[in-house]
Amino acid sequence: MAGTMTQNIYDDPEFFAGYSRLSRSREGLAGAAEWPALRALLPELAGRRIVDLGCGFGWFCRWAREQGAAQILGLDVSEKMLARAAAMTSDGAITYRRADLERLDLPAASFDLAYSSLVLHYVENLKDLLATVHRALVPGAHLVFSAEHPIYTAPMCPGWSLDAEGRKRWPVDNYLVEGPRRTDWLAKGVVKQHRTIGTYLNLLIGLGFTIAHVEEWGPTDAQIAARPALAEERQRPMFWLAAARR
Amino acid sequence: MAGTMTQNIYDDPEFFAGYSRLSRSREGLAGAAEWPALRALLPELAGRRIVDLGCGFGWFCRWAREQGAAQILGLDVSEKMLARAAAMTSDGAITYRRADLERLDLPAASFDLAYSSLVLHYVENLKDLLATVHRALVPGAHLVFSAEHPIYTAPMCPGWSLDAEGRKRWPVDNYLVEGPRRTDWLAKGVVKQHRTIGTYLNLLIGLGFTIAHVEEWGPTDAQIAARPALAEERQRPMFWLAAARR
Repeated sequence: MAGTMTQNIYDDPEFFAGYSRLSRSREGLAGAAEWPALRALLPELAGRRIVDLGCGFGWFCRWAREQGAAQILGLDVSEKMLARAAAMTSDGAITYRRADLERLDLPAASFDLAYSSLVLHYVENLKDLLATVHRALVPGAHLVFSAEHPIYTAPMCPGWSLDAEGRKRWPVDNYLVEGPRRTDWLAKGVVKQHRTIGTYLNLLIGLGFTIAHVEEWGPTDAQIAARPALAEERQRPMFWLAAARR
Repeated sequence: MAGTMTQNIYDDPEFFAGYSRLSRSREGLAGAAEWPALRALLPELAGRRIVDLGCGFGWFCRWAREQGAAQILGLDVSEKMLARAAAMTSDGAITYRRADLERLDLPAASFDLAYSSLVLHYVENLKDLLATVHRALVPGAHLVFSAEHPIYTAPMCPGWSLDAEGRKRWPVDNYLVEGPRRTDWLAKGVVKQHRTIGTYLNLLIGLGFTIAHVEEWGPTDAQIAARPALAEERQRPMFWLAAARR
């Protein structure tokens, strides 16, 4: 998308309607099965200055404020999402701002935590974004994010197949061919950027981050007991989570 | 294999014969397509003390000595391999020793580099092995290894499938179910230990290593041009490589 307007599929009426119906949109953090694992990677938030890259409806921003965060900046490209997020709070410590993560500008050494949930796999110019984030964090600050797992984004035609016994398998192809993948998720032609875990980690290391945790996410036994349909998420990871220190 | 003798499939006559015929056994490092990428992760070797975990026929040990390494300790569980390795050198700076990586003992703070090529995915008790390696390295020392990629080890019945157009895909299942996988590679019933990349990295981080590089290996354009059959290795990674600092 170099030279053109950054993809803003979120404000597409069909996508926005579909996205608004997801459990993670309706129920917030509690509606995201990977949230307990992502939360476990966060530092103590009291008194912290936080930037949320791709804040959506602002569920994390409001939760972080409840944990005592001092200032929270929620960034998103979607005007509709930001409008809904803004309507859900009147807390002066939370600021929502429209921003294009492909060309983000942030003040230097201004945040103690950068957080991003399921957004970085849409970003084409990831290196510049992570460099901006590194500059915006103070020494010792944290970066915690989730993204779609490359096993999930790799296939040109993603989907389950069945083995001879009818068990679900996830055929992988083009795993080592990084670049755009056009999928039909909630709307037609959503473009994701497929990258290996190694590429993400080496970008972070090259910028001076120290890798603190890497987790290829799957449901816990308790989550599967409560919601048996989650069991198939153990066949292949849909998400991965990472924590790093500046 | 807790409580029993550690798997030593290498000395099985059928396995040993098959292994001896692999290009990486006959041609050494030049016969391993991932070697240039692994070599690129190594520090300058002149004057270094090196331990090779699973040295096989000793190709790396002899190469490291040619690079000026001061002392090289090659460890392997296979008596047949060690005998062949010993027969190929008379250099007093290279020592080969039979060792069980499931219960390894090494002197503390004695090495500048620990190296391991395609062995760690056979080790059940990886945490204790990596703790032993951490103690055996001096501060600032390097750990460089390759292992089979979890995409490759995950499936209960690994193998290619074909899509509707006859293109190869690699069906993944049980990716998040870590543990033994019984495969028939060169001999029947070889047991590998399937682990996610996250599990490896978090073990290293927990022991105090700093992750320096993570690479999900695929062939270069030049390698595919020279050997077109390698192209399918871009569909899914067979190996991954990592470098860490103590």
